[in-house]
Amino acid sequence: MSTIAAYVYRHGRRVREASLTEDGLALEPGEFVWIGLFEPEEHELRTLQKRFGLHPLAVEDALSAHQLPKVEVYGDELFVVARTAQLDEGQIRYGETHIFLGPSHIVTVRHGSARAHTNLRAHLEASPALLKHGADYVLHGILDFVVDGYLPITDQIEEAVLAMEHKALDAFLSRDEIRALFQLRRELLRFDRLLGPMEEVASRLERLDFPCVDAEVRPYFRDIRDHVRRVGLRVGALRETLASVFEVSNLLEQQRQGAITRRLASWAAILAVPTAVAGIYGMNFDYLPELHWKYGYYAVLGAIAVACLVLYLAFKRSKWL
Amino acid sequence: MSTIAAYVYRHGRRVREASLTEDGLALEPGEFVWIGLFEPEEHELRTLQKRFGLHPLAVEDALSAHQLPKVEVYGDELFVVARTAQLDEGQIRYGETHIFLGPSHIVTVRHGSARAHTNLRAHLEASPALLKHGADYVLHGILDFVVDGYLPITDQIEEAVLAMEHKALDAFLSRDEIRALFQLRRELLRFDRLLGPMEEVASRLERLDFPCVDAEVRPYFRDIRDHVRRVGLRVGALRETLASVFEVSNLLEQQRQGAITRRLASWAAILAVPTAVAGIYGMNFDYLPELHWKYGYYAVLGAIAVACLVLYLAFKRSKWL
Amino acid sequence: MSTIAAYVYRHGRRVREASLTEDGLALEPGEFVWIGLFEPEEHELRTLQKRFGLHPLAVEDALSAHQLPKVEVYGDELFVVARTAQLDEGQIRYGETHIFLGPSHIVTVRHGSARAHTNLRAHLEASPALLKHGADYVLHGILDFVVDGYLPITDQIEEAVLAMEHKALDAFLSRDEIRALFQLRRELLRFDRLLGPMEEVASRLERLDFPCVDAEVRPYFRDIRDHVRRVGLRVGALRETLASVFEVSNLLEQQRQGAITRRLASWAAILAVPTAVAGIYGMNFDYLPELHWKYGYYAVLGAIAVACLVLYLAFKRSKWL
Amino acid sequence: MSTIAAYVYRHGRRVREASLTEDGLALEPGEFVWIGLFEPEEHELRTLQKRFGLHPLAVEDALSAHQLPKVEVYGDELFVVARTAQLDEGQIRYGETHIFLGPSHIVTVRHGSARAHTNLRAHLEASPALLKHGADYVLHGILDFVVDGYLPITDQIEEAVLAMEHKALDAFLSRDEIRALFQLRRELLRFDRLLGPMEEVASRLERLDFPCVDAEVRPYFRDIRDHVRRVGLRVGALRETLASVFEVSNLLEQQRQGAITRRLASWAAILAVPTAVAGIYGMNFDYLPELHWKYGYYAVLGAIAVACLVLYLAFKRSKWL
Amino acid sequence: MSTIAAYVYRHGRRVREASLTEDGLALEPGEFVWIGLFEPEEHELRTLQKRFGLHPLAVEDALSAHQLPKVEVYGDELFVVARTAQLDEGQIRYGETHIFLGPSHIVTVRHGSARAHTNLRAHLEASPALLKHGADYVLHGILDFVVDGYLPITDQIEEAVLAMEHKALDAFLSRDEIRALFQLRRELLRFDRLLGPMEEVASRLERLDFPCVDAEVRPYFRDIRDHVRRVGLRVGALRETLASVFEVSNLLEQQRQGAITRRLASWAAILAVPTAVAGIYGMNFDYLPELHWKYGYYAVLGAIAVACLVLYLAFKRSKWL
Ligand SMILES: [Mg+2]
Ligand SMILES: [Mg+2]
Ligand SMILES: [Mg+2]
Ligand SMILES: [Mg+2]
Ligand SMILES: [Mg+2]
Ligand SMILES: [Mg+2]
Ligand SMILES: [Mg+2]
Ligand SMILES: [Mg+2]
Ligand SMILES: [Mg+2]
Ligand SMILES: [Mg+2]
Ligand SMILES: [Mg+2]
Ligand SMILES: [Mg+2]
Ligand SMILES: [Mg+2]
Ligand SMILES: [Mg+2]
Ligand SMILES: [Mg+2]
Ligand SMILES: [Mg+2]
Ligand SMILES: [Mg+2]
Ligand SMILES: [Mg+2]
Ligand SMILES: [Mg+2]
Ligand SMILES: [Mg+2]
Ligand SMILES: [Mg+2]
Ligand SMILES: [Mg+2]
Ligand SMILES: [Mg+2]
Ligand SMILES: [Mg+2]
Ligand SMILES: [Mg+2]
Ligand SMILES: [Mg+2]
Ligand SMILES: [Mg+2]
Ligand SMILES: [Mg+2]
Ligand SMILES: [Mg+2]
Ligand SMILES: [Mg+2]
Ligand SMILES: [Mg+2]
Repeated sequence: MSTIAAYVYRHGRRVREASLTEDGLALEPGEFVWIGLFEPEEHELRTLQKRFGLHPLAVEDALSAHQLPKVEVYGDELFVVARTAQLDEGQIRYGETHIFLGPSHIVTVRHGSARAHTNLRAHLEASPALLKHGADYVLHGILDFVVDGYLPITDQIEEAVLAMEHKALDAFLSRDEIRALFQLRRELLRFDRLLGPMEEVASRLERLDFPCVDAEVRPYFRDIRDHVRRVGLRVGALRETLASVFEVSNLLEQQRQGAITRRLASWAAILAVPTAVAGIYGMNFDYLPELHWKYGYYAVLGAIAVACLVLYLAFKRSKWL
Repeated sequence: MSTIAAYVYRHGRRVREASLTEDGLALEPGEFVWIGLFEPEEHELRTLQKRFGLHPLAVEDALSAHQLPKVEVYGDELFVVARTAQLDEGQIRYGETHIFLGPSHIVTVRHGSARAHTNLRAHLEASPALLKHGADYVLHGILDFVVDGYLPITDQIEEAVLAMEHKALDAFLSRDEIRALFQLRRELLRFDRLLGPMEEVASRLERLDFPCVDAEVRPYFRDIRDHVRRVGLRVGALRETLASVFEVSNLLEQQRQGAITRRLASWAAILAVPTAVAGIYGMNFDYLPELHWKYGYYAVLGAIAVACLVLYLAFKRSKWL
Repeated sequence: MSTIAAYVYRHGRRVREASLTEDGLALEPGEFVWIGLFEPEEHELRTLQKRFGLHPLAVEDALSAHQLPKVEVYGDELFVVARTAQLDEGQIRYGETHIFLGPSHIVTVRHGSARAHTNLRAHLEASPALLKHGADYVLHGILDFVVDGYLPITDQIEEAVLAMEHKALDAFLSRDEIRALFQLRRELLRFDRLLGPMEEVASRLERLDFPCVDAEVRPYFRDIRDHVRRVGLRVGALRETLASVFEVSNLLEQQRQGAITRRLASWAAILAVPTAVAGIYGMNFDYLPELHWKYGYYAVLGAIAVACLVLYLAFKRSKWL
Repeated sequence: MSTIAAYVYRHGRRVREASLTEDGLALEPGEFVWIGLFEPEEHELRTLQKRFGLHPLAVEDALSAHQLPKVEVYGDELFVVARTAQLDEGQIRYGETHIFLGPSHIVTVRHGSARAHTNLRAHLEASPALLKHGADYVLHGILDFVVDGYLPITDQIEEAVLAMEHKALDAFLSRDEIRALFQLRRELLRFDRLLGPMEEVASRLERLDFPCVDAEVRPYFRDIRDHVRRVGLRVGALRETLASVFEVSNLLEQQRQGAITRRLASWAAILAVPTAVAGIYGMNFDYLPELHWKYGYYAVLGAIAVACLVLYLAFKRSKWL
Repeated sequence: MSTIAAYVYRHGRRVREASLTEDGLALEPGEFVWIGLFEPEEHELRTLQKRFGLHPLAVEDALSAHQLPKVEVYGDELFVVARTAQLDEGQIRYGETHIFLGPSHIVTVRHGSARAHTNLRAHLEASPALLKHGADYVLHGILDFVVDGYLPITDQIEEAVLAMEHKALDAFLSRDEIRALFQLRRELLRFDRLLGPMEEVASRLERLDFPCVDAEVRPYFRDIRDHVRRVGLRVGALRETLASVFEVSNLLEQQRQGAITRRLASWAAILAVPTAVAGIYGMNFDYLPELHWKYGYYAVLGAIAVACLVLYLAFKRSKWL
């Protein structure tokens, strides 16, 4: 059984539990029911579809998951899809929450690793003055809950990006670090992709005149939109930062290669002196006068040492060494 | 003969076959005819043009193919062009489906490798309650069918991109793999290009008040738009991923080149020691005292070995080796 | 004399030639005159300006050329500028066609290498049923003619891009090929630049309610817009392809450089063995026992060969050779 | 106590101090109160909320900070968030100023390092003719004050960018300079990010008909928008400049590497001559006639010198040296 | 005194000079005054402000300069800011022209190196039929004059870009040329930045219904907008061209580096032969039979020559040499 909870509310207070039957879902005027499902069986959703007249296209979406965040109007009904994200042992898990909102009912369908709504329900029931707004206020509560879940993810990614940035500037990136940089970039891309449609969902709920959403509740959706936008701007800045970490790593590695090339060239030039000179005096000519000088060997050793030193200082001065 | 099928429907049920003649296309009120053609001859389309008053510009498009996806209104008629794509032995084949929609007729014209509509027709006829909506519901069915064909392509490209990504991170790309990366990128570009106009087609059919499309059928086009958008977002993410695989390959190759350069420099320096020393003692000076020492040879061999070892350890410590 | 042709039409049929004088341009109700000029003298345009009340700003544009494609309304007149492009011995030549459209006149002014309208006029006169639409249909005919001229250019550039792409993937680009790649990119940039404004011209003529353009003729401009858009999408794809040919060439050249560096390093290491060993045994120590062994020379030769072979195989196994 | 100042104004002149109590905030018709708070306690804001009916969502924002710049309408109230930036010992410090604007009150809440409004208040009180406009004119004054604070920051960053640009063109960038370049780029990104929303705030206050903002005051917000836009364009240009400094550094370093490679190759070739020749004459063949020539040694030395000179001149001519 | 000229016009003709006093600025119905100032003192503008009721925000802008191009409405007044650019000894000088337009006055305030309006005034006075349109036509004349000043700049930059492009393709860029490329890019960026706002100014004057601008004059502003757009498209193309000159230089330098590396490798391999062989025969083994062969020396020389030749031809065939 996938039902998590189903309760009837009146004047902002829980009045009784509901059961997913024709009778169990009967409502008095002024009451609304909030039903929470987790990866339901098809027949469960079909029962609710019959009772509340849910639109077949929306029910189909809610069964199959893999939807983008969206708000859809079917007659006097609203169908909302939100994308959830949560940290699970350092990994981001994505899920979906589908919400059917009618004049006197709200049905939520969770897919994937979405966090349970138990605490959320308790939290909302603790403020009857607000819950009195009705099912549309519950919709706000759920979206707020979903979007609050983005914050720890952004924090963690930000930390990882900052660490990567420091590494890239302090030392040269190893093969594994370049790989990690790429993975981070991909994680950000994936996360960024859900923010645009989520912001649009909140923005439309605030701006447009939808059925079942009262005017007093609409500013609350603006609050959610602001939250998503803030996350989105941070993520956007992180993406730009990572992109320029790539560029700066490139430039640093190139600069380093240049420095090494110049150092190698200097030492090669310095070492060429003894090699060339020794080669000359290693020739077997019968008549090669220097070979017979008394201090020829020491003179040559000294000349080699002087030449090497001169070169060394010259390179040192031009900063090649 | 290019006609695939032509049947008349009443109350969502097939009532008789139609023939492409004046008489064969006569319709009672409440009936509509669905005619499916595959790469028709000009005269066949001209017959239908006369019978249903199809606009000459639309007929011309339907004859020549090579159109972009679009929706056009001619008087109380609709002309829709959809781009089809299918896998054929691992290759993507592109085609076009042109649709004329009138108050009591729908004519489809397939070009290229589009899959036949036989199964689609059977599938739609199996739900008379929905087919009762009329020819506009058939239009939805066809577009849905076309767009469903995009999914296996996206899946296959995604697999190829993931494989390429793993290769690029695990080992260095060979010449052939770089070539394959480029081909994949081009394939994605080509596929991405049909998604934008297709999304616009579905979106306009949902949002705008077109002739021959009833209000109850419009949400069905939203469903198609969502499907195309989902494919489009996945393709967009794959394109960004491939672009950053290019960048990361670049950075990895550069990092590797740097590592090799440093290694080479180290070994060159180590090998310079015996060469230089041996050069010195290969000189033919009359007076070169070390040559006459008893253990001169061993001393020099030892000195060379020690110098090489010291250099080796120094390079090891600075991570050049 | 720059007049190409000037004829009066009634009911879609040519009824008489017109001369550029007050009398020669007198029209009965239901008639319109189509005047074609090629790089006219100022006084010729001034005559027409007086007769038809052309706006001075439009006349000035038509005299000087160097306009961007645009549609302008002056009172109940329309002034349209189209950019022409044609192949002339493998080169793209750009020109301009300016069109003044009034209730009963259409004046075309061609600049640059635009193709003559003789065939176009014959083609339009061949369908009096369509030409009956009046001067606005002639406007459509001219724009259609201009845009049809883009196709062979796109075809030729596409061929060149494909050839370049194959070269870049199959072999390494030479200096001259890189230069040709750059030229192609520039040609594409230049051609792409005229497509945006041309599409806007056609699109506005279809969407907006302009004077002198009847509702029945407007769908014909949509056809032109589609044509331009198609060309534009192909050109856009070619530009993206060329841009990634640049990137892939870069990556391939870098990969090749890396491979060569590794090969050089391998051979340098292998050759370092005989050099170092021979250096040792070329030293002149009095006491160097190996020199006096009977098979010392062969032993050393053999040791060198073995060491080189071992290195060779090691490099072979690590794919550096 | 976090209250900075609270005064009541009538006809553009300060008439008395207000205290944050029920009585202390009583106002006559034609009066408005301007209350300035710095990082207030929750209970302080709650008092004002009760007195002026501030919306709970706005109060929550004002308590927690971390908002993006925005304008929000709650009933006949306005809630504005502005981002402040100031230089503090060469570092940019970011802060926030939240403003509640009602028909007869304006409450400002400063967070972070925002500069105090003491001088601003004195400045506004100095022009009673303008302050007579009421609380909306104070809103303008505060936003103007905030935006004026951006100027010294832009100036300082511009100076740093110009210095960096000169360095990059005059000499080669060191590792530390590349790092500084990156830091500057990030600073600019961060600063640029607050400009877009700030411009939107000013632009909406000018264009839209908000409660509590009179028509005569609206042009003043346009002035602020222009100021932000100007800063934004300068910052945008600086970002593009820095990006192309990256590119040009890359190209310069590559060009330099190429020049060094060619120089090294030249010297390697020149030094290869004595090495090869000396090697030949160092061989121990019994019969090697040149060794026994009288001036063999000098001839060889001369030949080496000539060959080296020829090579040197050849390289000089081809600009490799 | 900063006044350049001040004249009163009636029916398109100059009727008298005006002086900047209360009396000197009195106007009959049907008259308008055109006052031209160059970097005026504050008191001069204040006089005009009092006389014509200029808005304080506009006057402040006109005093301080450093504005972006814009059009602002204050009551029934218009305030226009235009950016001027002119060549001064091969350098681009930027300036600003501020224009106050009222029902019967137009005041221009020039800042920076803007060209004087003397010739412009003469030119406009030469066509009383047009000047009869009134002060709005003068506004058109001034903007036209400003925008005409962009042309020689575009021409000069275009020439410089083409020259740079040819250099980059024909030879390799030197350090100084890379620097010049960067400067050119920056110059273009700076110039491009003024075109967007200027186009918007002209476009708004054409499209929107502003006070003091009559319907007959509005098409003249469209002409200016077209002019700016044309300049903008050329500048945009130049920027894209320069950006791809960067890319192509990169690719060419890389290709050249690769070619040199291969050439060096070839020569290094060829020279390794004599070195290695000579090393072998320079060893001092007692028993090294080849040393005692009669033609050993010549045989070895020959073998070396043959080996070098074989290598040379092999490299030649593989295009490394
Ligand atoms: Mg984003
Ligand atoms: Mg974002
Ligand atoms: Mg982003
Ligand atoms: Mg993005
Ligand atoms: Mg962003
Ligand atoms: Mg950006
Ligand atoms: Mg796209
Ligand atoms: Mg695309
Ligand atoms: Mg897409
Ligand atoms: Mg995309
Ligand atoms: Mg996309
Ligand atoms: Mg995208
Ligand atoms: Mg993106
Ligand atoms: Mg473009
Ligand atoms: Mg295009
Ligand atoms: Mg394009
Ligand atoms: Mg395009
Ligand atoms: Mg494109
Ligand atoms: Mg482009
Ligand atoms: Mg930005
Ligand atoms: Mg900006
Ligand atoms: Mg920017
Ligand atoms: Mg900007
Ligand atoms: Mg920018
Ligand atoms: Mg720009
Ligand atoms: Mg531009
Ligand atoms: Mg541009
Ligand atoms: Mg442009
Ligand atoms: Mg631009
Ligand atoms: Mg552009
Ligand atoms: Mg780029």
